[in-house]
Amino acid sequence: MDIVAELRNLLPNNAVLTAPEDTSPFETDWRHIHSHPALCVVLPETALQVAAIMKVCGKAKVAVVPQGGNTGLVAGGVPVEGLPQIVLSLKRMRSIRDFDPVGDTMIVEAGLTLQEVQEAAAAQAKMFPVSFGAEGSAQIGGIISTNAGGLQVLSYGSTRAQVLGLEVVLPDGRIWNGLKRLRKDNTGFDLKQLFIGGEGLLGIITAASLKLRPAVTARATALAGIVTLEDAIALFRLMKTHAGDALTMCEFISGPAMELSLGHLQNVRRPFTAAAYVLVELSGYQGTVEIEDLLEKALNAALDAGCVADVIIAQNERERSALIRTREGISEGELAEGGAVKHDIAVPIAAIPETIRAVEAAIAEHFPDCRLNIFGHIGDGNLHVNLRPPPGQSLHDLEDRKAAITETVERIAVARQGSFSAEHGIGQMRIAGMAAHKPAIELDMMRALKRAFDTENILNPGKMLP
Amino acid sequence: MDIVAELRNLLPNNAVLTAPEDTSPFETDWRHIHSHPALCVVLPETALQVAAIMKVCGKAKVAVVPQGGNTGLVAGGVPVEGLPQIVLSLKRMRSIRDFDPVGDTMIVEAGLTLQEVQEAAAAQAKMFPVSFGAEGSAQIGGIISTNAGGLQVLSYGSTRAQVLGLEVVLPDGRIWNGLKRLRKDNTGFDLKQLFIGGEGLLGIITAASLKLRPAVTARATALAGIVTLEDAIALFRLMKTHAGDALTMCEFISGPAMELSLGHLQNVRRPFTAAAYVLVELSGYQGTVEIEDLLEKALNAALDAGCVADVIIAQNERERSALIRTREGISEGELAEGGAVKHDIAVPIAAIPETIRAVEAAIAEHFPDCRLNIFGHIGDGNLHVNLRPPPGQSLHDLEDRKAAITETVERIAVARQGSFSAEHGIGQMRIAGMAAHKPAIELDMMRALKRAFDTENILNPGKMLP
Repeated sequence: MDIVAELRNLLPNNAVLTAPEDTSPFETDWRHIHSHPALCVVLPETALQVAAIMKVCGKAKVAVVPQGGNTGLVAGGVPVEGLPQIVLSLKRMRSIRDFDPVGDTMIVEAGLTLQEVQEAAAAQAKMFPVSFGAEGSAQIGGIISTNAGGLQVLSYGSTRAQVLGLEVVLPDGRIWNGLKRLRKDNTGFDLKQLFIGGEGLLGIITAASLKLRPAVTARATALAGIVTLEDAIALFRLMKTHAGDALTMCEFISGPAMELSLGHLQNVRRPFTAAAYVLVELSGYQGTVEIEDLLEKALNAALDAGCVADVIIAQNERERSALIRTREGISEGELAEGGAVKHDIAVPIAAIPETIRAVEAAIAEHFPDCRLNIFGHIGDGNLHVNLRPPPGQSLHDLEDRKAAITETVERIAVARQGSFSAEHGIGQMRIAGMAAHKPAIELDMMRALKRAFDTENILNPGKMLP
Repeated sequence: MDIVAELRNLLPNNAVLTAPEDTSPFETDWRHIHSHPALCVVLPETALQVAAIMKVCGKAKVAVVPQGGNTGLVAGGVPVEGLPQIVLSLKRMRSIRDFDPVGDTMIVEAGLTLQEVQEAAAAQAKMFPVSFGAEGSAQIGGIISTNAGGLQVLSYGSTRAQVLGLEVVLPDGRIWNGLKRLRKDNTGFDLKQLFIGGEGLLGIITAASLKLRPAVTARATALAGIVTLEDAIALFRLMKTHAGDALTMCEFISGPAMELSLGHLQNVRRPFTAAAYVLVELSGYQGTVEIEDLLEKALNAALDAGCVADVIIAQNERERSALIRTREGISEGELAEGGAVKHDIAVPIAAIPETIRAVEAAIAEHFPDCRLNIFGHIGDGNLHVNLRPPPGQSLHDLEDRKAAITETVERIAVARQGSFSAEHGIGQMRIAGMAAHKPAIELDMMRALKRAFDTENILNPGKMLP
């Protein structure tokens, strides 16, 4: 019996897709760069079904590609070229299994979207603090598998910091129920850490126990105009000293990034013109008056210190939304203008200005016709350094220079003890970076982990490890 | 050449101890329960020396027991019975290699004490938020290897949450330099997670890159008297809703625990008499007036809700110290009164009252002559459930009932989806718990990790894994 027939035997009706019009969305990545055929797409509804699929595929030596909302930017959840493989989508595993309002925890299945998780928490006056543009489509299982970042990492940490426990189907088809709801548990190696950010190479996450927080009761948001890159760092330091972890957002928006965003957004007025911008937000449990007062004090200190040229503070939720939209509009505007060769680097925070200058110099020297679009998360040292094609050209025209562009940007980050993939992960698209930048000893340790858990290399092969 | 002579050849003068009066403190655990001989104690000063020691011992098949400040409570850093082994103390690795006031990071070597790390941070107006009683002796390498908890986990997380990177000597003697200072780095498996809480089974931590925070500018502290166990939970919830992560301490102190503490402490007046007590502290970056106001609002809500019978708020730093000392005095008082069979369990927070009642019932039934001393960290669901010998008897007299006592307490936690070792780890003393309570699949995964990294079982054998 062939593998598709075997899987049909195992699973409910309509849980095995083979028609090209059905499978194609699962075979193609979010950015439409990678598309390779799968033998079929399976849509299990339970961890037991996932386990049965793993066993059948293991025996047949057919690779399994786990997929969440397929919003990843490095093609980690779609097939690779030239392998017998199936896509296993978690989208039908959608239960909220538990909600604990005292312990501030929630147990959810992998297929819920991030937005659904946020809304389920908010309905009980709680908060799940991971947040980014694709949250309406991204699924919690994929978010955990990729240790997603986003806008509020500087205060709340990446997704890793929000996970208390996992249910995982191992490559041999066994189910690990590690769905603890505990804040502390030092009983042996912390196994869940292997699967968080593991990109589906060691196991398939089918459910997670999440850490929630009480919903914040007040926010204060401002957009500052700055003159130099050093101003951005000085402003960040002042905000952090005044507000500590109440500083929940501190985003850098270069001049060109702001132009892309404003050019794209409807109904958002240009705030003021500056060389570059910093978007800051404080959140907390005080009253609105108190948090606005804290923001004003910090901004006054920044004006006094001369690191802010101009500033507007949102006076109501509508104005706040408009400011947040200017940040979110950057990627949308970039895409509408034809896209870019994207990078996602991190450096120590103090090195941000010098890193940006080094990037600008290298691009001016080697790719002078291309246009830089830089923005990012100051408090995480995380910069999105995107290179747009010359006016009149498409992204496709950059194809043969793409590898050289990426190599140039990644080397600048790595030379400053930085990361060549801060929050997007490796998938298929950053494997060249792993080969180029990772010390042999790290690749050895990672391969030792893969061998220890997936001897047959059946789970998501061709991703992460060169 | 024998191993001691070989090690003397490798290392500086006075770096290899063999005289019993020199080695004995390294061979005996903090609680003086386990003491087994080592061939020698080595005191390397650099990661290169640690690496050389590992290579020599690997070749000779002599086990290596890494040791920090030797303040662990489960004998994880001292020799086991009947093995050729050496103790490798990190106490001479004491440099602060880097301090980054912009990125709020510090790179320190393993042998600095926690207090020295805290003080180095404080000298630059920063804060390293791990804190517990033994901080004057505990070393940062050991703290990371055991993922230590303490008093402020509910807001800042365990030690794991404070680590950005590690330098580790692997069992084969290779040195992994993973001392990144980045807040985000999604380039492959997060290898440092293996060694955090790894209890020295997979590698020896020689240095760490730590995450700091701006020092808080204000604190407000109160001791509340409560009537029922449910009051403690209700008070915690109210505090959390009012203050969020500004609630940096929420400690449960049972009546008997308070008596032990007050009986032991000099110059601390009895605050008031209650059935049990909750010690709360808020910290933040507001002014002192604002944070005291926040505390008062929350406590007034608790008084209105009837979950607090009596309360005192510290009016100055001296009064604050006295309140904190009542919490710290519990363990000291217990020790002065002859010690106890100790347990360190965690349960979901809502299950705390019922867990305490179940423990009280089980002890009353099976060990009615013994005296319970219960205290712990409400926000972590973490209870220290200690059983003191009957009046007139010593801890030694409990020896033959000890295993049964521990089995009773651990089962109560595990039956409530809890942990039998919340923050102390496994070491030698909780291995029976691993065998009794851990599912086979978890032990399999842990052993697979051990095999993948330490094929010859040379690093800290006889610890953690049954």
